[in-house]
Amino acid sequence: MLGPTIVRAKPMTPNRRAFLSVAPSIGIAIAQEHKSHTDQDQEPAAANTPFHPFDPALPPLSRGTVRRIQMTSQEVPVCIKPGTVVSGWTFDGDIPGPVLHVRQGDTIEFSLTNRGRMPHSMDFHCAAVNPKTAFRDIKPGQSVSFNFTPRVAGAYLYHCGTPPILMHIGAGMFGAIVVDPTVPLRPAKEFVLVQNEYYLNEPHDGVSSPSYAKMLAASPDIVAFNGRPGQYHQAPLRVRRGDRVRFYVVSAGPTHPSHFHVVGQQFETIYLGAPPENAIHGVQTFSIPPGGGMIFEFIADLPGEFPFVNHGFGHGQKGATGILIVEE
Amino acid sequence: MLGPTIVRAKPMTPNRRAFLSVAPSIGIAIAQEHKSHTDQDQEPAAANTPFHPFDPALPPLSRGTVRRIQMTSQEVPVCIKPGTVVSGWTFDGDIPGPVLHVRQGDTIEFSLTNRGRMPHSMDFHCAAVNPKTAFRDIKPGQSVSFNFTPRVAGAYLYHCGTPPILMHIGAGMFGAIVVDPTVPLRPAKEFVLVQNEYYLNEPHDGVSSPSYAKMLAASPDIVAFNGRPGQYHQAPLRVRRGDRVRFYVVSAGPTHPSHFHVVGQQFETIYLGAPPENAIHGVQTFSIPPGGGMIFEFIADLPGEFPFVNHGFGHGQKGATGILIVEE
Amino acid sequence: MLGPTIVRAKPMTPNRRAFLSVAPSIGIAIAQEHKSHTDQDQEPAAANTPFHPFDPALPPLSRGTVRRIQMTSQEVPVCIKPGTVVSGWTFDGDIPGPVLHVRQGDTIEFSLTNRGRMPHSMDFHCAAVNPKTAFRDIKPGQSVSFNFTPRVAGAYLYHCGTPPILMHIGAGMFGAIVVDPTVPLRPAKEFVLVQNEYYLNEPHDGVSSPSYAKMLAASPDIVAFNGRPGQYHQAPLRVRRGDRVRFYVVSAGPTHPSHFHVVGQQFETIYLGAPPENAIHGVQTFSIPPGGGMIFEFIADLPGEFPFVNHGFGHGQKGATGILIVEE
Repeated sequence: MLGPTIVRAKPMTPNRRAFLSVAPSIGIAIAQEHKSHTDQDQEPAAANTPFHPFDPALPPLSRGTVRRIQMTSQEVPVCIKPGTVVSGWTFDGDIPGPVLHVRQGDTIEFSLTNRGRMPHSMDFHCAAVNPKTAFRDIKPGQSVSFNFTPRVAGAYLYHCGTPPILMHIGAGMFGAIVVDPTVPLRPAKEFVLVQNEYYLNEPHDGVSSPSYAKMLAASPDIVAFNGRPGQYHQAPLRVRRGDRVRFYVVSAGPTHPSHFHVVGQQFETIYLGAPPENAIHGVQTFSIPPGGGMIFEFIADLPGEFPFVNHGFGHGQKGATGILIVEE
Repeated sequence: MLGPTIVRAKPMTPNRRAFLSVAPSIGIAIAQEHKSHTDQDQEPAAANTPFHPFDPALPPLSRGTVRRIQMTSQEVPVCIKPGTVVSGWTFDGDIPGPVLHVRQGDTIEFSLTNRGRMPHSMDFHCAAVNPKTAFRDIKPGQSVSFNFTPRVAGAYLYHCGTPPILMHIGAGMFGAIVVDPTVPLRPAKEFVLVQNEYYLNEPHDGVSSPSYAKMLAASPDIVAFNGRPGQYHQAPLRVRRGDRVRFYVVSAGPTHPSHFHVVGQQFETIYLGAPPENAIHGVQTFSIPPGGGMIFEFIADLPGEFPFVNHGFGHGQKGATGILIVEE
Repeated sequence: MLGPTIVRAKPMTPNRRAFLSVAPSIGIAIAQEHKSHTDQDQEPAAANTPFHPFDPALPPLSRGTVRRIQMTSQEVPVCIKPGTVVSGWTFDGDIPGPVLHVRQGDTIEFSLTNRGRMPHSMDFHCAAVNPKTAFRDIKPGQSVSFNFTPRVAGAYLYHCGTPPILMHIGAGMFGAIVVDPTVPLRPAKEFVLVQNEYYLNEPHDGVSSPSYAKMLAASPDIVAFNGRPGQYHQAPLRVRRGDRVRFYVVSAGPTHPSHFHVVGQQFETIYLGAPPENAIHGVQTFSIPPGGGMIFEFIADLPGEFPFVNHGFGHGQKGATGILIVEE
């Protein structure tokens, strides 16, 4: 079950919908094709790196139980807000990497190809594997493939595990993988939020490189949901009155928790562990540890504009807030 | 149910017992009347701002199910310990604001009048309302009124939600509201502790103003329970042997959790979510996230002096400790 | 039950296996005897302070229900990694102090003798006692004795409670005491990990003293499991395939939580409160508050090398990681 499988490593592209289609059994991963800026020898100037939002919607679960997921690691500039470009270390050219959606018991056939200039690797928090082989470092141009079967449902982090991990996560190499339980949760409008911190050097030619010294000092410059500070103020999430709203919240860190809260509401349910068990009910705010993920639910029974925030405002104020609009 | 109600906005006063009487149906909120120092054009000098302790006792729940709560926002100096005066941004002239005590299912008729010099607002974590209207900013001299019905029992934060929220909470605009469940919890000696951090500029004319730069750096100068560092060393909490002790602990932050612990005891029960469910038992220390609240219980079966602390001592050492005396 | 008992205070020695044998009823605590470096008037030079690892195995529970535990407090240099010596404030000459293993309902006859140069004390988080007497400060040369009966099972911190507590914990005065429930948990390979932070001044004659200023700033230089950064990379923990693995994880702080995670696995069970109740299941990462302890379990059903980490990598990267090897 855990043996390697032959997977054609093909370059993934920066994925504006943050959606990695995972085709059913023996299918091939197909992302929407955009022009890739990942195979260039030179980093594009900041001016050539446009801003694009990151879709927070949980992509639908495709049919089948064998899912082939192909990703790349690459260092590319990422525009995290208009006028701010970071020299990201990325999965598939974006921060965070694509949102993955699978189901407990599926067979995941995973392959990572390193199109970067330094070693990278992949650590899925939902995988039960020998990290020494599956999560091993690969050099530029190399690939690693491994299969795994998620045994526990939940909202998981994936990230590069190459030392120093602090730097690889801090520079952008992380994303979320949602594992549905065998019996699906109640229908809901489902969103994925990955919180991360940016620690940045002064920009050079318009691009800010990651600062390892600042990461060690643990005082971030920017904190964001889905890689872009405040993006869901400009483009709010939208549901309809009466919808159950489910947030899969993953803390990438690299260092700080997310103290998640929705203004004007209380969480009906928070799953601290594998759903549908391990729930607490009637909660205003709860902390997701760095490297962790939890699932937050409430019923949007009132129309209005509901900010969702990291209520640790020394960090939340740096960009980890957004708006959910409940339409009549 | 959520429509506005006509409420006479009348100035609240700095409330030495930290108690806001909430009168029964169609009654009028009556706080003990002290001389108000809130309408002055000039801030009083530090010498004119005496220290007063903050009563940690949960005020009793008054009769009735419709509760009219009137508060003011105002910027006034607050003496947080003898010799230390901060230029507070406050509710009702104190840090924290008054402790409120209501019951699940009550109708709360709330009104805020802004007697300050900048916009403010009110965000109750126990309210299910449209924040865009109910929690909206009001300019100096204006009022906002809204009704709500707490649907979930617990220990909740309220705070000013005007941007930048980090600054408004960090400067003192927060308090606790306790929502009893429909079926009351077991009888207990009940205390309310709100933890907050102070980030202060060097004093000017004896008054320290809040430092937004320090708030963003997240390294507080002082951390306190109920606004005053170490006040419950000078004036310990007191119960009798055999009492059940219940702490409603709310973390105002703005940034750090409270890692709550009672020396010489273990918590029989901690409610992570709405009581009387959502409990864990037999715990030495648990973290309340910034923007969150939890309820901690134990039986005071031994006489003695029991310190209660934020066991994250890099912060707790800055004032978030006190003493509970269990008398024979 | 809580009255003092006469205990011969005898000097404990730095304990290479981190094991304090606790003899059965009316027995005498016997640690393996090593050459003691604790009674010298002068601190040995760094060169005379060799590195020794700290055994993470939970020592077996000895027979009997009355356990006599004798410890000393003393300031001695401790080599926390080859080439790095700190001027530790310690229990029994090591950081952390000895791992203690007792059972719910036992009678613990405890004695502390202060062989240091300043006041110290002992605070057991599993004790229900009057701290004012049991946990009182004792001067150099004095002893304190008290009895207690652990009433709640779990993984507990013990620490010096002498003001400033931040300094006494930050300088090394802490350890773990595991309290088994009356009905034993399922058989497992059991390990104890105590996370702590070091805040150090520049070395003087090869020895780094603790920096209180850095502790107040809460930005540690080193973070470690069982006192030594990265020691379980050099000497990994080992279990066999099929073993249940149980980690008793205690956060000494003094300030930061441990966000505990095992790479390549998910926790089957985490006990947030007293075991065998108070469990959540199917969790990737969970936070142990400073001053707290939790119990983490999984089945080692795959062979390989599994890093265990504080996934808050701004801290974890400073030494709070190790390796668990699962042998076929």
